[in-house]
Amino acid sequence: MNEKKVVGEKAVEYVKDGMVVGLGTGSTAFYFITKLGELVQQGLSIKGVPTSKQTEKLASELGIPLVSFNEIEQIDLAVDGADEVDPELNLIKGGGGALLREKIIAKASKTFIVIADSHKNVDTLGFFPLPIEVVPYGFKMTMKHIRDLGSTTKLRQHQGNPFLTDNGNYIVDTSFQKIRQPKELEKNLNLIPGVVDSGLFVEMADAAITIIDKKLVTQVRK
Amino acid sequence: MNEKKVVGEKAVEYVKDGMVVGLGTGSTAFYFITKLGELVQQGLSIKGVPTSKQTEKLASELGIPLVSFNEIEQIDLAVDGADEVDPELNLIKGGGGALLREKIIAKASKTFIVIADSHKNVDTLGFFPLPIEVVPYGFKMTMKHIRDLGSTTKLRQHQGNPFLTDNGNYIVDTSFQKIRQPKELEKNLNLIPGVVDSGLFVEMADAAITIIDKKLVTQVRK
Repeated sequence: MNEKKVVGEKAVEYVKDGMVVGLGTGSTAFYFITKLGELVQQGLSIKGVPTSKQTEKLASELGIPLVSFNEIEQIDLAVDGADEVDPELNLIKGGGGALLREKIIAKASKTFIVIADSHKNVDTLGFFPLPIEVVPYGFKMTMKHIRDLGSTTKLRQHQGNPFLTDNGNYIVDTSFQKIRQPKELEKNLNLIPGVVDSGLFVEMADAAITIIDKKLVTQVRK
Repeated sequence: MNEKKVVGEKAVEYVKDGMVVGLGTGSTAFYFITKLGELVQQGLSIKGVPTSKQTEKLASELGIPLVSFNEIEQIDLAVDGADEVDPELNLIKGGGGALLREKIIAKASKTFIVIADSHKNVDTLGFFPLPIEVVPYGFKMTMKHIRDLGSTTKLRQHQGNPFLTDNGNYIVDTSFQKIRQPKELEKNLNLIPGVVDSGLFVEMADAAITIIDKKLVTQVRK
C-alpha cells in the first residue's frame, strides 16, 4: 500500500465546492494536491492557497486556481503533511523548510487536517529533527540560546551556503530527543529574539488522517 | 537641561577598556555613541556592535571600531534608548523600527542599560504604540490575530509603501493602551505565526539611567 497516496487522497473528501483550501508542502501533500487537481478538472470550484513556491508550481500545473493569501479573509480547510504526529495530534513539521508559511496557513484555517503515513506516528515528539526558522542577523547567538534549552543545533545548508526559506531566513535543525512538554518548548523557543518560529505545531491540527495497523484511520483532536 | 544628552553621556561611564559594546539606535543613543567616539579618539579601546544600519554609519564616522555580531561570542555591555520604561524596567522599544536587532543584542549582553529622558517613564506601558515586526507573507492575517489580543493595528508606511526593517520585514504599530501584564502579552504575541518579535522588552534591562524630578538617577532592576 502506498500509504502517502491513501491518506492524501482520503483528505480530498473534506473539500467542498466553493472552499478556500490551504495546500500543504511535501511528499504526502503531493497526493492530496494531485487528486484535488483531478476534481478541479471535473468541475469542482475551489481556490487554493499554497504553503510554498514548490506547491504553487505544482498546483498551477494541475490547473488549481490560486489566490494570494493577502486577498482572502479566511481559509476554510488546510491539509498538510507532518514529520511526526503524537497522540494529542501535536506535530513536528518543516523538514522541507516551509514551516512558517505552513503554520501561518494552518492557524488561519477553520479546519486543519494533517495527513501522515504510519511512520509519522510517535508516542513522544522529538526523534525527528525539529526545524527552527531564524533571522540571519545574529544567527550564531540565536543557535546558542536554542542549545541552552537542551538541544544540539545545526545550520541547514544548501550547496555550501545557508539554506534560505521563502521568507529569506535560515533554518536551524535541532535535536531535543524527547519533547515531553511541547507547549512549553514552543513558547520558550518563540521568546528567543531571532527565532521567527519553530516546526512545533501544538494544538493546531483538528484531525489526522493516518494509517494504524494497516488501516486508514481519521483521528479527531479532543 | 538636554536630558537625552545627560543620560546618554552618563552611560559612557560603564564602558571599560577592552569591552564589546552594543550600540543602540535613536536620539538618546546618539549622545551615548557620540561621547563614546570622543573617548575612542582619546585612546579607549573597545569594539562596537551596532543595532542598525543608521548606528553603524554614525559609529563609523566617529571612528569607533565595529565588529560583526556573528564574529563575537558575547557582548559585555549594551546601551540603548526606549520609548517607554515602567517601574520594573520593562520597556517598549522600536519606534525607530530596529526592535529586533536591538532585542537580539540586548539578550546577548551581560549587562543591558537603558537610557531614557524623563518623558519615557510611565506607570504602565502601552500609551506609546507598541511596534511588532511581522513577516510580509500573510501580514493581514497576522494583523487580525494581533487585534484579537485587544489592540488596534496599523501597518507602518514609508513613502507610500510598507516600511521595511533591516531584516526585510514589516512593522505593525499597535495600541494596547494599558499593558498590565507585559510578560503574558509578549508570550502571546510571539506565539502568533508571522510575528517575528515585538517591542516589549520584559525583564531584559539590568539598569536604567534616567531623569526623575530633574535629577540624574540610575535605577537597578530588582
